[in-house]
Amino acid sequence: LSRGAGIRLSELSRTSGVAIATIKYYLREGLLPAGDAVAPNRAEYAEQHVRRLRLVRVLREVGGLPVDAIRDVVQAIEDPHLSLHAVLGVAHRAISPVSPPTDEAALAEIDGFLDELGWVVSPEAPGRMELAQALTALRALGRDVETTAFLPYAEAAERIAARELASLPTGAPTDELVEQVVVGTVVHGAALAALRRLAQEHHSARQRKSGT
Amino acid sequence: LSRGAGIRLSELSRTSGVAIATIKYYLREGLLPAGDAVAPNRAEYAEQHVRRLRLVRVLREVGGLPVDAIRDVVQAIEDPHLSLHAVLGVAHRAISPVSPPTDEAALAEIDGFLDELGWVVSPEAPGRMELAQALTALRALGRDVETTAFLPYAEAAERIAARELASLPTGAPTDELVEQVVVGTVVHGAALAALRRLAQEHHSARQRKSGT
Repeated sequence: LSRGAGIRLSELSRTSGVAIATIKYYLREGLLPAGDAVAPNRAEYAEQHVRRLRLVRVLREVGGLPVDAIRDVVQAIEDPHLSLHAVLGVAHRAISPVSPPTDEAALAEIDGFLDELGWVVSPEAPGRMELAQALTALRALGRDVETTAFLPYAEAAERIAARELASLPTGAPTDELVEQVVVGTVVHGAALAALRRLAQEHHSARQRKSGT
Repeated sequence: LSRGAGIRLSELSRTSGVAIATIKYYLREGLLPAGDAVAPNRAEYAEQHVRRLRLVRVLREVGGLPVDAIRDVVQAIEDPHLSLHAVLGVAHRAISPVSPPTDEAALAEIDGFLDELGWVVSPEAPGRMELAQALTALRALGRDVETTAFLPYAEAAERIAARELASLPTGAPTDELVEQVVVGTVVHGAALAALRRLAQEHHSARQRKSGT
């Protein structure tokens, strides 16, 4: 963007709906790249800043991500050397809750399950630990469960992920693809969780009506 | 449970793996019913306390629920007048993140979408607001989306929920069913989110290998 085509901080605030103090905080925290210094004490901002502010807002409001996690995602998006696949890994680590220490035996069971599914994932994928934790939690509650209990969820997840990845536009710039995948992971993840609870409510209402 | 069959606080701590100070905190906060006072300054605890401690631990560690939300769930489980369906509603409200004010027009679109699906849900279901928020977020990011974008997620959610509700044991006491549904919502919700990210990673690795 050439100088002069930029907008002032006040206009950036108006356009994005984000308060000036919040924008200054994001600049300090590295969530937003610095503006173009057109004069001492005067910076100008461009379309990329408006877009970035929208992304940060979605990650905060829909994803509930802390500032540190958003910084990791934003830095990965800006890194021209990272592939889409690598940025996805960063985003997944940022989105995932911090896991308590995981039972090694449960983790080995999960790895066996993922192997059977034929899924190739990195050893650092937080999903491995989260699944192992879910298995341990169910057993601590006295459930006699095996990893096969996760199979219906895995099938649903696979269908959804295949569709999501296939629907990415071909030929779009990498940073745009990355932004789309990150947003999809956060926003569609929230939508899926909400829909599952709504479907549960709907089905439990039906059970109640049929008297079971 | 008759007096004398109970266990002391120290044994409850050993059996459940929860520290004595934490158990005392849960007692004060109403997450755990008081023990049976067998003497001044001496209470005894029973199997129900062991089970409850496991449930509280899962809601905290896997669900990441704050103490206030766990109290709501526990009180609903203990209420003999609430149906399974009603307790599920309480659990859903406890699990769901607090939503910012929702755009009324987006909410009306979501209601239309749920109507088309034939799902009957209560106006207080937090999932309605979460879906509306997801729709608003996608549009704020410049996506030209309609509620039909949620259809694949809704189909997956419906399949899963129908299966979950159908697999509840018939004839079990209500508080046990309720506990099972609550745990299922939290633990299987975490498992589904983890599996979706693992499936994404697997598919993005495949895309990378095939050179797209």
